[in-house]
Amino acid sequence: MLFGRKEPIHVTNLTNDLFLRALRREAVDRTPVWLMRQAGRYLPEYNATRKKAGNFMALCKSPDLACEVTLQPIDRYGFDAAILFSDILTVPDALGLGLHFVEGEGPRFKKAIGSEADIRGLPAIDIEHELGYVGEAVQTIRRALNDRVPLIGFSGSPWTLVCYMVAGGSSSDDFLKVRQWLYSRHDLVLLLLEKVTDLVIQYCAMQIRKGAQAIMLFDSWGGLLADAQFGRFSQAFLSKVVAALTQQFPDTPSIVFVKGGGLWLERIAATGCTALGVDWTVNLGQARVRVGSQCAIQGNLDPAVLLGHPDHIRAEVARTIQSFGLLEPGVGHIFNLGHGISQFTPPENVQCLVQAVREFSSRSN
Amino acid sequence: MLFGRKEPIHVTNLTNDLFLRALRREAVDRTPVWLMRQAGRYLPEYNATRKKAGNFMALCKSPDLACEVTLQPIDRYGFDAAILFSDILTVPDALGLGLHFVEGEGPRFKKAIGSEADIRGLPAIDIEHELGYVGEAVQTIRRALNDRVPLIGFSGSPWTLVCYMVAGGSSSDDFLKVRQWLYSRHDLVLLLLEKVTDLVIQYCAMQIRKGAQAIMLFDSWGGLLADAQFGRFSQAFLSKVVAALTQQFPDTPSIVFVKGGGLWLERIAATGCTALGVDWTVNLGQARVRVGSQCAIQGNLDPAVLLGHPDHIRAEVARTIQSFGLLEPGVGHIFNLGHGISQFTPPENVQCLVQAVREFSSRSN
Repeated sequence: MLFGRKEPIHVTNLTNDLFLRALRREAVDRTPVWLMRQAGRYLPEYNATRKKAGNFMALCKSPDLACEVTLQPIDRYGFDAAILFSDILTVPDALGLGLHFVEGEGPRFKKAIGSEADIRGLPAIDIEHELGYVGEAVQTIRRALNDRVPLIGFSGSPWTLVCYMVAGGSSSDDFLKVRQWLYSRHDLVLLLLEKVTDLVIQYCAMQIRKGAQAIMLFDSWGGLLADAQFGRFSQAFLSKVVAALTQQFPDTPSIVFVKGGGLWLERIAATGCTALGVDWTVNLGQARVRVGSQCAIQGNLDPAVLLGHPDHIRAEVARTIQSFGLLEPGVGHIFNLGHGISQFTPPENVQCLVQAVREFSSRSN
Repeated sequence: MLFGRKEPIHVTNLTNDLFLRALRREAVDRTPVWLMRQAGRYLPEYNATRKKAGNFMALCKSPDLACEVTLQPIDRYGFDAAILFSDILTVPDALGLGLHFVEGEGPRFKKAIGSEADIRGLPAIDIEHELGYVGEAVQTIRRALNDRVPLIGFSGSPWTLVCYMVAGGSSSDDFLKVRQWLYSRHDLVLLLLEKVTDLVIQYCAMQIRKGAQAIMLFDSWGGLLADAQFGRFSQAFLSKVVAALTQQFPDTPSIVFVKGGGLWLERIAATGCTALGVDWTVNLGQARVRVGSQCAIQGNLDPAVLLGHPDHIRAEVARTIQSFGLLEPGVGHIFNLGHGISQFTPPENVQCLVQAVREFSSRSN
């Protein structure tokens, strides 16, 4: 077990602890459900709050507004978990790289990491201070949630942060520059990974201390690594984060999501995470056979399903639940998409999904 | 066996038949090597010819210039196979979609497929006529090659062509529109796939008749499909193409490359292809165990390796060859990258790779 046997302190008073029970692979009456990027642009109420904030980063940096959007999908759909509204790139922003978003183009940094001097010149920062707005948001959200459902904190994985830091933002060439460094200056990649990993650990630890009841690590670009490189450049650092958090917070579960990591489920499970997030290319039944006795599994509906007809949504939800198979103690399934929800999703389709998960996964069925 | 027992007619007089022997999983003295996109922008002589042609499509459509660039990497490096210089999207172009390239942005169509009427309105075309320039290029290249090495013909896979046709070119949202159709109008996707598949078969058949000695199908976007959709929307149509070609041309081997298809190697092998192309996320030794008794395996060095130091290139080539394991009759390995070569590759690094493949894969080692 990755967390203590005694009832975790954060969990005691939860009105709905389905999500945490499924993470612990305990018996549940039905499959819990939440969606990656559930507080997002597909929701009119989110867009209204974002407009009020001015821009995306201002929304992240306002604890009250971040709280407002975090709770919107909980209020509307009754998801079984809330996830902190923030961005995976707050740590590089805190390092002074200047995160901002260009409409329709994704994240951009004002400064990129281009040399050893850039890495060695990264400032020593106090995460509690620099990312104090995140800690405050976590506290504000916990108060507002009032133990209805647990709150998930998160960070980008070390490898994924390094990808963005070296590219200076999102990439049109599969982050070729840092992948080139793997074969020419892997010492630089490792140096940067070490620095970033320490900060990711501090960052997640702060979120837990402020009230996050689970931590998710998003390795959005782990799937760009060669088979022989994934272990050294992503898995090893995911393991460090998970180990450090588990040691400090044995009661707080961790979820590791490696997009495009379906070939490496055994290695991801070996990080010691409580649950594995899997994308829609993975067969859930096979994932369960491969790692389901070590980890819970979270996923994995194709986000494109939510752009289809309600009949298809119901059918695909049913298929996803069936592909995982019977709920029983010793295995755990958390229903989610295989990637973030599309901004073009009609909000009523999410209601249809939530309803279908409840209906098709209930024990009485 | 997918090809006749008797010696294939095209092969008889080849000076170097290593590539075809490896495809047939016969004994070879060393591992043959060629690179996806080996005639490309990393070569100064390619850029000179392209300048002469005016633009990329003009280069594709000039048999003499296409021949010139096809032979450039053969002359420079002595690769064990030549691949027709063309584009994976010539079939939609022949259907009147108006293929062109925007500098730094990839392929674009003047017209996209947006409705059932668009699909039903696609013209009946005579591939031999509309893509006569490709047939002529194949003939010209065969003459110029003079049986030094075999010539590979190719096409985009049906699913990948449909992705581009519906998106109107390359996509910044993982081809969301056609993936949405999978869950709302899968009848349209299937209708378009059927039409495209017939043309891909005719197109590949024409290339073989004109002299192509192997055919490669590029399923660049198969890896975007959900586990439950890959079989129906990509694999089934790859199978149709392979089956039709095998029936008409039992001596001509086929290679199927599904980028991001590492989880589905068994299903790709079940298409009946002679060889499987695999990207760099796949472990070659595991691929060999999974499908190596049914198919040869082609791949899979990370193209980023070629941007590194020669020492690293040699080390990674050695590792790739070792990961496939001992060459012996009954298995076949063709050395290649796991994706197309980067335009930023220093030409001398390719020489280093070719030299290393020869050195490390020779039987005497």
